[in-house]
Amino acid sequence: MTKGEETSNEALGPVSLSDLERFCREVLAAAGADDATVDAAARAMMHGTRLGVDSHGVRLLDHYVTALTHGRVNPRPHLELTHESGAIATLDADNGHGARAAYYGMEQAIRLAGQSGIGAVAIRNSSHFGPAGAYALAAAEAGLIGVATCNSDSFMRLHDGAAPFHGTNPIACAVPSGDNQPWLLDMATSAITYNRVQLYKSLGQELPEHTASDAEGQDTRDPEAASMLAPLGGSQGFKGAGLAGLVEIFSAVLTGMRLSFDIAPMGGPDFSTPRGLGAFVLALKPDAFVDTATFEGGMARYLEVLRSSAPRSGASVMAPGDREWAEAERRIREGVPLDPATSSAFARLAETYGVALPRDA
Amino acid sequence: MTKGEETSNEALGPVSLSDLERFCREVLAAAGADDATVDAAARAMMHGTRLGVDSHGVRLLDHYVTALTHGRVNPRPHLELTHESGAIATLDADNGHGARAAYYGMEQAIRLAGQSGIGAVAIRNSSHFGPAGAYALAAAEAGLIGVATCNSDSFMRLHDGAAPFHGTNPIACAVPSGDNQPWLLDMATSAITYNRVQLYKSLGQELPEHTASDAEGQDTRDPEAASMLAPLGGSQGFKGAGLAGLVEIFSAVLTGMRLSFDIAPMGGPDFSTPRGLGAFVLALKPDAFVDTATFEGGMARYLEVLRSSAPRSGASVMAPGDREWAEAERRIREGVPLDPATSSAFARLAETYGVALPRDA
Repeated sequence: MTKGEETSNEALGPVSLSDLERFCREVLAAAGADDATVDAAARAMMHGTRLGVDSHGVRLLDHYVTALTHGRVNPRPHLELTHESGAIATLDADNGHGARAAYYGMEQAIRLAGQSGIGAVAIRNSSHFGPAGAYALAAAEAGLIGVATCNSDSFMRLHDGAAPFHGTNPIACAVPSGDNQPWLLDMATSAITYNRVQLYKSLGQELPEHTASDAEGQDTRDPEAASMLAPLGGSQGFKGAGLAGLVEIFSAVLTGMRLSFDIAPMGGPDFSTPRGLGAFVLALKPDAFVDTATFEGGMARYLEVLRSSAPRSGASVMAPGDREWAEAERRIREGVPLDPATSSAFARLAETYGVALPRDA
Repeated sequence: MTKGEETSNEALGPVSLSDLERFCREVLAAAGADDATVDAAARAMMHGTRLGVDSHGVRLLDHYVTALTHGRVNPRPHLELTHESGAIATLDADNGHGARAAYYGMEQAIRLAGQSGIGAVAIRNSSHFGPAGAYALAAAEAGLIGVATCNSDSFMRLHDGAAPFHGTNPIACAVPSGDNQPWLLDMATSAITYNRVQLYKSLGQELPEHTASDAEGQDTRDPEAASMLAPLGGSQGFKGAGLAGLVEIFSAVLTGMRLSFDIAPMGGPDFSTPRGLGAFVLALKPDAFVDTATFEGGMARYLEVLRSSAPRSGASVMAPGDREWAEAERRIREGVPLDPATSSAFARLAETYGVALPRDA
């Protein structure tokens, strides 16, 4: 069977989420990843796929296997807190998987916040970490407010700029909300992600206004002409660029790691050299600041009034995360369809590693 | 002399910045503010006026005098750290001036960060604090990274919303940059501020696209038709609304203070009741995370490459704060013109309190 050929036109699914996770875990382990890396990378990808953030879901598995088996990412890293003092620590991730580094970093931030009310960890020598929201959510699941940021290779122009400068530089924040699902913001500081441009291209649709630019930095709605992303904000794009800068400073300058424009492209061709990525995670313990009843009452009232705020005609209003939690409920019930490219890669990985493909939901 | 009449058509200036500060201080003191309140309120207003952020500059003096003399703001507050534990504290500002509370809160965050690498203070029972950047900058001037947020009364619709929900909810962050002026981001999470709408109205100009909406939540470029602000982001306005929510949670929920939609309007008519505002400040000590040479080298390289990044035809690129620092240099040299409404209010305050008007630059 020639790799990919027989399968490239056939999409899998909808497949069961739990068996999809089993597939990811078996493939990562067969590719040489240690248990902690398997756990973290599968958990992060499944966060993306479960919540409908498919750009940061299981489509990354093939990429991660390449990175883990060619030297870019250390499949068996020795993570070390090289420095800890008061409420902060510096974590050297030994060029391990970004999800392994970020989950471990957030665990340490949570521990520090347990002692000091707040905890921050600067992560060094990490790699692509996928969905920033996964690590913020890990804090919220432990009852804390979590924040996670990471820079990436250059995709976004500056305001009034004509060259890629920042990465898509996401900010994620998750806030526990009593018995309800956490409030969950996970956003690129670019107007949209590069993956969205690719999606519009494949659909033959126009891009939303002021989201991407041509090679001269002029905004374009033609995905074929798009050569860089616009910062969030359109005419007020200096704000999106400023937020991207904030992420850059926390993720790269405060960690001593590479600035976006110095990071090798995610897509290769070099898959053998670690990329020197930094990241930053922060946890805050709400009951260190205010009693639990006041905090939970505040979140409940905030979300209740938000969800009943008047919508524009024909539209509806939502809190950050509402769309994702609803999609997760649906996918847990119905499974998830896989796109043709991912299905093809999975068929190849299944054959290479002798692992059974994920079964239908 | 009838209040305001003789002076309402005459604009003062350009006046000397130092004498403008003298005027603000004398008026605040004559209105009954204690020394610490005079220092803080004058420093914050002069931050706005010096850097060209006139919406949060000395035009607020008249408003502050009204608030300080009618019971809304306590002119002689007893600030108290009601709780301190590890790297965090809760500050009760006794309904004092917001600048007094925020500068003091940031001082405490800086002290905590000196001990623990990071420090956060939740501020309770505060009031309008003016330019968020002033308090972030106070940290940067002490060699730390500073972050400051505050919510305010409702002005901004939700994404796809048709009613004011969040305040303009600013985020400010300042980062020390060695011998250069700090990197300084100070942004409303609404697309623009309400003050900008007023400015366009007075100039008879169209608003920038996707910055304000009519009473049905539909975007309008007519400042006369604008009845609420749009969240930052245009078609991606869920991101601006999400950031406004992040500010709301840190400033109001984590402090147990009022949510934006529960805050009495800044403009009255009630000036006798404290408004129950919260705020949140955070400081991080860079050399707790990474050695100073690496941090400063990273900031220098980041800013150097940013400032030389290719601009769009006919435009230029800037780092957050660049425009403001250049304006400050100019205003220190040439003084600052005061708009007619502020000039008129100043003439009235000068007469009421027997204080000499600011002299020309």
